[in-house]
Amino acid sequence: MENISFHAHHSPFGAYASFIIGKLNSGAGFDLSNVQPQNNNFYVGYKRDEENAYLMPFLSSKRQINHEEAYVVKEHEENQANGQIHILTEKDIHRRMTWAQDLWTVNDLEFKIVTPFGHVNELEKMSERETRLCLLPAVFAQLTFDNSASEKTAEVVFGMEGMRRLISDTMGETYRGGACQTSTAFACVHSDEIEEKIGWGMLEQLWEETAVNKLGNEVVLNIKVKPGEKKTYTFVLATYQGGIITSGIPSQFMYTKYFQSIEDVISFALENKDYYLELAQQRDQELQNSDLNEYRQFQIAHATRSYYANTQLMVGSDEKPIWMVNEGEYQMINTFDLTVDQLFYEMRFHPWTTRNVLDLYLQRYGYIDGVKDMDSNHYQGGKSFTHDMGVANMFSPPHYSSYERVNIDGCFSYMTHEQLVNWIICAANYGIKHQDFEWLKEQEDVFKELLDSLINRDRDDDGIMDCDSTRCGTGTEITTYDALDESLGQARNNLYLAVKTWAAYISLEKVFALLGFNDKKKLSHNRANQAASTIVTKFDKEAGYIPAVFEKGNQSKIIPAVEGLIFPFLLGDYDAVSENGRFSHFIQALKKHIKTILVQGECIDAVSGAWKLSSTSYNTWMSKIYISQYIIQHILNMDYSEDEWTGWDIVHSKFQQKSCNDLCAVDQLDSRNGQAMGSRLYPRLVTNILWLSDQETDL
Amino acid sequence: MENISFHAHHSPFGAYASFIIGKLNSGAGFDLSNVQPQNNNFYVGYKRDEENAYLMPFLSSKRQINHEEAYVVKEHEENQANGQIHILTEKDIHRRMTWAQDLWTVNDLEFKIVTPFGHVNELEKMSERETRLCLLPAVFAQLTFDNSASEKTAEVVFGMEGMRRLISDTMGETYRGGACQTSTAFACVHSDEIEEKIGWGMLEQLWEETAVNKLGNEVVLNIKVKPGEKKTYTFVLATYQGGIITSGIPSQFMYTKYFQSIEDVISFALENKDYYLELAQQRDQELQNSDLNEYRQFQIAHATRSYYANTQLMVGSDEKPIWMVNEGEYQMINTFDLTVDQLFYEMRFHPWTTRNVLDLYLQRYGYIDGVKDMDSNHYQGGKSFTHDMGVANMFSPPHYSSYERVNIDGCFSYMTHEQLVNWIICAANYGIKHQDFEWLKEQEDVFKELLDSLINRDRDDDGIMDCDSTRCGTGTEITTYDALDESLGQARNNLYLAVKTWAAYISLEKVFALLGFNDKKKLSHNRANQAASTIVTKFDKEAGYIPAVFEKGNQSKIIPAVEGLIFPFLLGDYDAVSENGRFSHFIQALKKHIKTILVQGECIDAVSGAWKLSSTSYNTWMSKIYISQYIIQHILNMDYSEDEWTGWDIVHSKFQQKSCNDLCAVDQLDSRNGQAMGSRLYPRLVTNILWLSDQETDL
Repeated sequence: MENISFHAHHSPFGAYASFIIGKLNSGAGFDLSNVQPQNNNFYVGYKRDEENAYLMPFLSSKRQINHEEAYVVKEHEENQANGQIHILTEKDIHRRMTWAQDLWTVNDLEFKIVTPFGHVNELEKMSERETRLCLLPAVFAQLTFDNSASEKTAEVVFGMEGMRRLISDTMGETYRGGACQTSTAFACVHSDEIEEKIGWGMLEQLWEETAVNKLGNEVVLNIKVKPGEKKTYTFVLATYQGGIITSGIPSQFMYTKYFQSIEDVISFALENKDYYLELAQQRDQELQNSDLNEYRQFQIAHATRSYYANTQLMVGSDEKPIWMVNEGEYQMINTFDLTVDQLFYEMRFHPWTTRNVLDLYLQRYGYIDGVKDMDSNHYQGGKSFTHDMGVANMFSPPHYSSYERVNIDGCFSYMTHEQLVNWIICAANYGIKHQDFEWLKEQEDVFKELLDSLINRDRDDDGIMDCDSTRCGTGTEITTYDALDESLGQARNNLYLAVKTWAAYISLEKVFALLGFNDKKKLSHNRANQAASTIVTKFDKEAGYIPAVFEKGNQSKIIPAVEGLIFPFLLGDYDAVSENGRFSHFIQALKKHIKTILVQGECIDAVSGAWKLSSTSYNTWMSKIYISQYIIQHILNMDYSEDEWTGWDIVHSKFQQKSCNDLCAVDQLDSRNGQAMGSRLYPRLVTNILWLSDQETDL
Repeated sequence: MENISFHAHHSPFGAYASFIIGKLNSGAGFDLSNVQPQNNNFYVGYKRDEENAYLMPFLSSKRQINHEEAYVVKEHEENQANGQIHILTEKDIHRRMTWAQDLWTVNDLEFKIVTPFGHVNELEKMSERETRLCLLPAVFAQLTFDNSASEKTAEVVFGMEGMRRLISDTMGETYRGGACQTSTAFACVHSDEIEEKIGWGMLEQLWEETAVNKLGNEVVLNIKVKPGEKKTYTFVLATYQGGIITSGIPSQFMYTKYFQSIEDVISFALENKDYYLELAQQRDQELQNSDLNEYRQFQIAHATRSYYANTQLMVGSDEKPIWMVNEGEYQMINTFDLTVDQLFYEMRFHPWTTRNVLDLYLQRYGYIDGVKDMDSNHYQGGKSFTHDMGVANMFSPPHYSSYERVNIDGCFSYMTHEQLVNWIICAANYGIKHQDFEWLKEQEDVFKELLDSLINRDRDDDGIMDCDSTRCGTGTEITTYDALDESLGQARNNLYLAVKTWAAYISLEKVFALLGFNDKKKLSHNRANQAASTIVTKFDKEAGYIPAVFEKGNQSKIIPAVEGLIFPFLLGDYDAVSENGRFSHFIQALKKHIKTILVQGECIDAVSGAWKLSSTSYNTWMSKIYISQYIIQHILNMDYSEDEWTGWDIVHSKFQQKSCNDLCAVDQLDSRNGQAMGSRLYPRLVTNILWLSDQETDL
């Protein structure tokens, strides 16, 4: 790994909890019900003789180390016993991030954070034990010290700021570690060579014989490793958020039904550590055994971390599960234009979470609107869905999101058409690919309503949207690309949304075929044809591309023109996305479009060589690039060389490791330099799971 | 009130929750499970014409208003509709703090925070409704606008930063206000003239027609007051902390057994607002009808606020109540040397809370030690109690405090002897004054054990401590005056502790008399005599005072020499504290002592005129001064003039309002200037409730 100094989330499934570490000299720490780095002192290090001690560079930047002291902390004069503490530097350390592990090695010390994850079955199909295994709100750390070639006893330290009590206070002799109140803790199984310490400013007393100041805010474990020994210690990094957490829909964490306290989490985690370490190994092997280059492997691993950081599995007063994915720094709940992109990931590991979100959209966050044409004539509209379900653990009232507002053009306006398309696409994908025909059948009337709703928004019957929702008031609808490029925000006559609408019609066609509604199937089929034909007519033969918006002379060239292709492909309709299939003109036009725009200075950034979604904006979104990359490489099979792909992967990988390294996975970047522009700490980058897909088996 | 710019807590009973406001241009806000000012924007103001609007100076200092903009906020250019916003200044405003209300008036606007409080009966003796009335985790605000002389409609605003949802989202049409997740809210009953708004930076859009951005973090209510009307609106400032809050002893807030959610708190509060407003009026009248000057009335009111801010009534898994008073900025739980001083307050309003603390000290925080003399010979010790029960919602393990550590001289050493004395004094006072003889009887064996323990620490049988606990290791015991003056920290041969020990023996004498143990009664009686005689021998006739420590030539002169007198007095033993009684030599010596030391340059600060506890330290503690003032004025009846007392009251009052105005009630002050030196946001200052006491009825 060329750049090792970047923050990453380390999070269990559905606990909206992270341990964040990785940007050097910027500390580490837990965040609960949010995803922000904490910048607390984190102590990992060792000492083998009186003179020198070594610490990993995880101390908080709040310490404001001055230039001279940056690498050697001079001890308090009265306290020479500690010797010199050397803070290790980037060049001393090797870091490796696998899918489920974040490994740091230096000299004889290996330290890693282990974030086990895997397939999560429907809750009602699991035993209590299986459920506990899946819902444990904790991750792990492991520390290995190789003292086998030494004749001196080594003393290893592991500890952190923000811990305000010893775990032995509540767990007795069996465990050692620290905790803060009832909500965060670290612990390991006790053995005689481990000593627990608590105090203020433990850096000054890391190797002192005893230090117990129970008013302290740092807990450190000192572990003696004898000469000739190589020892590994496993720590749980545990979290617990009890009580009713969300408003609007009162709910508590599902895991609180299975774990009574953070102590309960700790003992279960350490009793079952072998299971979790094995699970992490499985994931690591799965990714390592793929044929993906290291840059893609890294990007998948990094994205996966930030996805889990944002996941939250709750249970309402009716005892039913509520799945939430929070929107990174924005904290919006189940933002629908993220749900549709995270579909690829959830379909692989826990398809029922997507269904759970679709159900809640139906039950609480659907609405029926009217539509208006450009002359402000009003007509019948139909059913659609809100942009999100609220923000920061506060569910918004029924039928309304936290994001959308009336009378706005641009950011914060309604996304009625896009969310309508998103529900159809997600539902078809879930029902058909996961073979949940019973659920599909239950949605029979909904699908019919949604087809009508789509058609009512297309008054000139050309297959694409031409009316805005009356919910917009005097404003107009936007798409998920709201913040990317002003010219792309508009939903009406939008190329990206038109192709996705085509995909929605194909999805409906398949659903109606399955459910046996032949007329609806044909209607959907015809509408897909109309959409494809309309889009083809927008192709500018001279310029060789389709403009982003079919209005006002727009000349933006956008990669997500092809985004919609992914959905028929995932449904197994390879004909629909083939240049020799029934949409051959359409697919050929899109291939030409990509060929034209994917060049330096257009949709390849002239400075950095990164992909950029739009030729007219240097704001670009990695999650969306990943989808289009998969389509262009594996669906359209376009002829870019391996070297070209690797070159792009290197640039994109470096962006995450270096340019926006303090905010975990970042979606919105400046294509020129990879600086974060928004959507920090974001879950959506798991679209890159597509790279791992095997058409036949996985998707 | 000469100085109006100081922060104050506004807190319900036992909810460890505050709304903190009062230091101008420093914002306001809720703090939960802590007592710190929050510095959020708080909007109270009005507008009667297009050109000018007026806001109370409660905006956050984070806004970093520059010098020119300090008084007039220039509106964003596009937004001239708001006109100019004038931030009112200290000279425009009148503030008055009564016992249960904090009133601000300016022009036609009156704004007040109302913190109703009163007697709280034992929980099992109250009906469910009475319990709900007592445990409601909320305070109130009232806003009155007098538009009776105006021909224009006025628009009043009330709102705050930190609120992230509209209360109507979960409470429908009946209420208006804002909330943050499940834990804090403000609300009023809806009427047609009230409009709810939410957004970012509401200052810029305070008077705009509609503003609903549900991603916002500020909620504001706009209220139209018609020409000729004078209207009052009552708001609840509600809090709710659900789930298990404490570790060590898992417990939840008692009120969560009676209120299901913050919405439940809001509706109950507003339905019963008349009860609460009346309760506040009762308290106000009680204080106003006393013969105390305004400075003492203010100090009582201010101290009471910070006391309630630190109170916390929990319920354990055994359904039994757990009373906690947290130690201000230090957050230690039920620090015993605070409990004994807060006794005066709790005995007036809810004596059972003191009993509850004594019970928990017995059950979990007692211990049996050995003792050691100055030559390190070890002997049998006895039962005593820890300094505290933990810190920051974390109960420490059985038999150990969070504060005390082994092998220390000075701050953080053990307080074994002092806490032993404290339990005896509190228990006798509670049992005898509250006439809970059944409880006293249950403690029969405990009292015997504690008498033995006291005697075992006094090996030379002179009535005062001469051995330290073996828990100190190589260190020595300290007293609560640990941080005041190094020479006073020592417990052994300490004048303050010797007098308090005398008081403990008298307390034991009365308890054993009641319980019918004649020999123990006599033994206690004799020990009290020995203590008094010993102390008298320490009187330096030439210098006219008793040194603070009877060792090493100590020459500190301390006011708390008399502190222990309060306890026999409160037990009705006026003879014990009379210069003509059975301890006449002792009391006469103490009076001479005070006469000698209470002079400018000794225990009256030469610069400020404030009292200082020790002649050799300018660190002084208001809570302790209040006790000694009451003793000197009302028990020893010493001949200081009314003018002298008023002069001192003015200095002490000004310290709280001006010198340490950003941290609510502060205990540890610099006697020269009133600057805070520690013990900020502190509960103990309610010792000044003594001023309100009527010997016969109240105490």
